[in-house]
This record gives sequence, C-alpha cells and structure tokens, in this order.
Amino acid sequence: MDPESVAPDHLTLGPEESHHLIHVHRALAGTPFQAIDGEGGFFECVVQSVEPRAVRGRIVERRAEVGELARPIRILVGMPDWGALEQVVAHGVPLGVSAFDFALCERSGRGAPGAERAERLTRIARAALKQSRRSRMPTLGFAGSLREALAALGEPGGGPGEPGVRFLADPDGGSAASSLARIPQSAIALAVGPPGGFTLEERHLLLDSQFTRISLGPSRLTTETAALALISIARNRL
Amino acid sequence: MDPESVAPDHLTLGPEESHHLIHVHRALAGTPFQAIDGEGGFFECVVQSVEPRAVRGRIVERRAEVGELARPIRILVGMPDWGALEQVVAHGVPLGVSAFDFALCERSGRGAPGAERAERLTRIARAALKQSRRSRMPTLGFAGSLREALAALGEPGGGPGEPGVRFLADPDGGSAASSLARIPQSAIALAVGPPGGFTLEERHLLLDSQFTRISLGPSRLTTETAALALISIARNRL
Repeated sequence: MDPESVAPDHLTLGPEESHHLIHVHRALAGTPFQAIDGEGGFFECVVQSVEPRAVRGRIVERRAEVGELARPIRILVGMPDWGALEQVVAHGVPLGVSAFDFALCERSGRGAPGAERAERLTRIARAALKQSRRSRMPTLGFAGSLREALAALGEPGGGPGEPGVRFLADPDGGSAASSLARIPQSAIALAVGPPGGFTLEERHLLLDSQFTRISLGPSRLTTETAALALISIARNRL
Repeated sequence: MDPESVAPDHLTLGPEESHHLIHVHRALAGTPFQAIDGEGGFFECVVQSVEPRAVRGRIVERRAEVGELARPIRILVGMPDWGALEQVVAHGVPLGVSAFDFALCERSGRGAPGAERAERLTRIARAALKQSRRSRMPTLGFAGSLREALAALGEPGGGPGEPGVRFLADPDGGSAASSLARIPQSAIALAVGPPGGFTLEERHLLLDSQFTRISLGPSRLTTETAALALISIARNRL
C-alpha cells in the first residue's frame, strides 16, 4: 500500500489503495496492514478510520529499507523488444535493482516506449516491489543512445567517495566468479547488450567508462536472460 | 537443426528442419549450416543435396558438448502456474540446466501438465537450446509429489564417485556467496519451492535428502525468479 501522506503517527492511503484494502482485504477499523512509501519507508499500521477513498491508519512501527540490498545495483540494458523489457523489470525488481537504464543501441530494433508503455512498465515495477516486500521504488530511465545512458550514469561511483564497480556481460570476458570475488563494498553498475549485442564502438564506449567485461558462460544468452543472470550473481555478492 | 540420422560423414535433416532450412534460410547446395543431435553432438555442415523433406549435409566438423557446462545442474521446482513454469524453462535452458524436475507440492495450485502442455514446454526447451547454442537437450520431468521427485533424483551424486551438492532456496538459509564458494567439482542439484513455499514437512524431506539451505537475499522472490537466480549463481560457480 502506498500512503498518500505520512504523518509522524499516522498515514492516509490514496483512493486506489483505500478501495483495495476495503474491498479486497475487507479491512475494518483495527485491521492490521503494511504500507511502503517507495522511498525506503516501511510502516506496520492498524486501520483507524475507513473512508471509501481515504483509509487512515495508525503507524505501529516504522522500519527503513526493508527488503533492500546494502548497496545499490544499477543496470544498463540495450533496448530489447517489449516482452523482454517487461521481463527484465518483473524479475529485476524482486532481485533488488535500484535503477534500470534502457538505452537505444545501434542494434536495438525499436525506440523508447511511448507514455502508455512506460506507464505499464511502472505498474509492473510497483506490483513487483510490493510482491517482493521491498520498500524503495527503482527508477526506470530511457535513453536515446548508449552515450546518453552513460552520461546519466555519471562518473564511476555510487556516491561521494565510492569508486563503484562496473561489469559488462561479454562472451569474450573473464570468468564472473573471479571478477565478482573482488567486488569492494560499493555501488554496482551492470551492462547488457541489446539482442545482437553491442557494436564494437559501443563496447569501446563501455570499456572507456570503466566497465569490466565478464563472461556469463559457454552458451549464448538473450538480453533478458543475461540481465537476470548478471543481476543474480551481483546480488548474491552483496 | 536436429538431424534425423547421423552417419560418419553426413547427416539428414527431418521434414520440419529441412523445410526451415530451404524456405527460411534459402539454403542451396553448398550453403553452410549447423546441426545438433540434442545429445551433445554439434556438427558444422555444408548442404549436399536439397530434397524438400530431407536435406542432406556433409559433416565438415564434429564437436562435442558445445555450449554445455562442465558439470550438470538439475533443478527441482515446486510446481507453479503455467506462465511461471514456461519462464523457468525458457531462461533455465540457456543458463545450462540439464534436468528440470517439476514436483506437485502441498501448496502447488495445480497438477502435472497434460500432453498438450508438456509438448508445448518441450518446444520451448528445444527453441531455447538452439537459440542459446547448447547441444544437449535437458530432460523435463513431472512428479506427483516431492517425495517422488526426490526418489527420481536418487542418492546424492551425479555419477559414480561424485558426491554431488544440493542447495535449497530458503529465506532462513545462509548466504549464497559463502555456501557456493565451497562447491566441489561435482554435479549440482537445486530446489525451489512452489508459490507459497514448501511446507515444513516438505522442507524436512529436502534436508533429509542432503539439501543445504541458502538464502537468496532480503526480498521475497516468486518461484520463477528464485529458480533463475539460483541457477545463475550456481552456473557462475562452474
């Protein structure tokens, strides 16, 4: 449940969430429920008053960063088709990704999603966030080129003083196990090519931006499978 | 392309593959193509003769176990819904799984797939095998209970003299990184619960069958996401 407003001792749910709580969960005054603010806040609540479009809950306990990884994982993905893009988000959110950067690459078949597609993707991410009991909503970004996506990523480093580490899935890279064994306690950025892969020029751009190539194994992976594999192994190093 | 028959110096494709090669790839005598037999054989070929339903190719090079992992990974999955089951296969095949064992568990919503569903799943696996350039077709098994699936798994060990290691995704387990760091050079079996998880009794059955519990992180994962994460981290240890 996303609260519309959060006060020190109570919160108010928006119309949609209120409706859901009343009509699906049959909540009454006194019913316990949980809410997240999408910014790392997690609230154990009890229903105080049931207005059809504005359920108010008393906050029993506040917790921070529930379900979140100790360090952020960003992933830059060469834009695949919609089905693949939705799968990356649907599995990537539960796996803890903090930012998805979809970049239109030379070999991407298509452009950035329109407003309706982007909205649908946001809904998938929100549903996955709740289902997985995370508390911080990841960002979804779309860039017109790899260069633009790299600029948005900024200089290596997830914050002041953090060098950050960057890994690029590449069949010619080294073993993931040995590369990832050396991950320092810092933010992680990952990159996976579009169907057909990054071009040579794009690969050079990534290497110039401090990405290290790692191989995900002997078989050829689609963009979405490679993304999920790379997220999984990075997550399990954190 | 799956050959219908393989001789020492040539092979013959079946009707469907022949049609595909002629009409989609516009193959003529002399056109190079690749074929796998699904049992680890990979063949670089050149078209010798083009019969509509039986293309014959000269074998230029034979290779073994192309795209295959050094050690087999089996995964036992508590039966989820069809969409999830298909995703486990569609991503699990490229990631190198050698055997999928789907088990009807206490909390599985549904039974084993009928003939049509099983056939569809086999088609998904075959397509993923070719797409990923693997050469050995994984087995797809369905068991009426966890006990039955464990019996099919046999005693721990992927072969004579191999002890085999077994991991169970469990929120209460230890860290994946530390458990997997100790994987010996042996076959791996993985287990992931159905939606809602394994019951206490099922969990005891798994622990009695030498499965070690590992946690996949702080958030709650669906059956399909947990399966893909577990396969990915096991794969990248091999």
